[in-house]
Amino acid sequence: MMTGSFSAEHRQKDIMALTNPMNPVNPMPMGPWKITVYDQEYFQGKRMEFTACCQNIMECGMENIRSLKVECGAWVGYEHSSFCGQQFVLEKGDYPRFEAYSGSNSYRIERMISFRPICSASHKESRMTIYEKENMIGRQFEMCDDYPSLQAMGWFNNEVGSMHIQSGAFVCYQFPGYRGHQYIMECDCHGGEYKCYREFGSHAQTPQIQSIRRIQH
Amino acid sequence: MMTGSFSAEHRQKDIMALTNPMNPVNPMPMGPWKITVYDQEYFQGKRMEFTACCQNIMECGMENIRSLKVECGAWVGYEHSSFCGQQFVLEKGDYPRFEAYSGSNSYRIERMISFRPICSASHKESRMTIYEKENMIGRQFEMCDDYPSLQAMGWFNNEVGSMHIQSGAFVCYQFPGYRGHQYIMECDCHGGEYKCYREFGSHAQTPQIQSIRRIQH
Repeated sequence: MMTGSFSAEHRQKDIMALTNPMNPVNPMPMGPWKITVYDQEYFQGKRMEFTACCQNIMECGMENIRSLKVECGAWVGYEHSSFCGQQFVLEKGDYPRFEAYSGSNSYRIERMISFRPICSASHKESRMTIYEKENMIGRQFEMCDDYPSLQAMGWFNNEVGSMHIQSGAFVCYQFPGYRGHQYIMECDCHGGEYKCYREFGSHAQTPQIQSIRRIQH
Repeated sequence: MMTGSFSAEHRQKDIMALTNPMNPVNPMPMGPWKITVYDQEYFQGKRMEFTACCQNIMECGMENIRSLKVECGAWVGYEHSSFCGQQFVLEKGDYPRFEAYSGSNSYRIERMISFRPICSASHKESRMTIYEKENMIGRQFEMCDDYPSLQAMGWFNNEVGSMHIQSGAFVCYQFPGYRGHQYIMECDCHGGEYKCYREFGSHAQTPQIQSIRRIQH
């Protein structure tokens, strides 16, 4: 039930490899990717389609993104240009309003200015290790499933000191049940190593992580 | 790494069977359950512990719940008394503010007045079938995993007409990536049958469902 034939996907992979500066050496691309963004809610107003990353939607003549449809692949949206600020994981489906893609955060930013494909996302083959302390030391746990509550699976507190993504991509959340700040973790960024919470994302202020799941492509 | 010995769990099951009116014939209780609620943010103010359902927190002398900790089991919180209104799935962990348990909704209610254990929750043994149309007809798909995007797994649009929970419990969401309105679906409520979207929950206004996952106990 996947879209596109093998050869079409293969061409798309070649295109992505050439056009996606975030992912120059992705060993296992899973294309194709397609996202359609709108400057008004409910898929109204100005409309643009993308098959690769966008560093600043304002440079494309769009002031902000107020609704979007992911048609192929998994993406990450960012609050600011150049892939900075709050992160929003975007999987296939319809997002008619800001609330549909922002998640639950303490401050309600209503901006998504840049976005890019998550090239290593693989729902079937994602594997990571979480560690109690920074620099991959202390207690550890290996994960290859989705965990809406790390504490329910036996993790000892509400923090993760560091992590190593061996394959695929995960999204980590501040609160249980996939709520709060989101941190996208990929095997092909930082060599898959996130040595302290400051490397989780430019918006990370604490090592608090209470749920983790694979990203679906 | 589970808390409590077998015999302690067993006693708790007996207690739950006697004290939980929401679940008189649960065939496979998974206790114990424990939730601590506070009337101020960050686990401050008045504090109360519960091991069974609470139909109206105001009758316990608490005006509202502004933070909570789930210590054992999976729970569902409700906007209104008597288990009505918006639903919030609550798995083990710390929820320091309203945003931590509400999820992303278009209207920001800040009320949680009743709650109860999800007795059938089982991360390992949950199985359900979703159907295209009301009354379990049309295209169907059997699920026993977590799906942050139904469309990425091959489902044909952003709606689910009806569903049947064969075992365990699931939470369905309006938007991809576990966002938007939440609907808790249990094998031991309605005989596990949800024949149209009006049975999804008292707050359901459309059959729009774009992500579904098991509930973790």
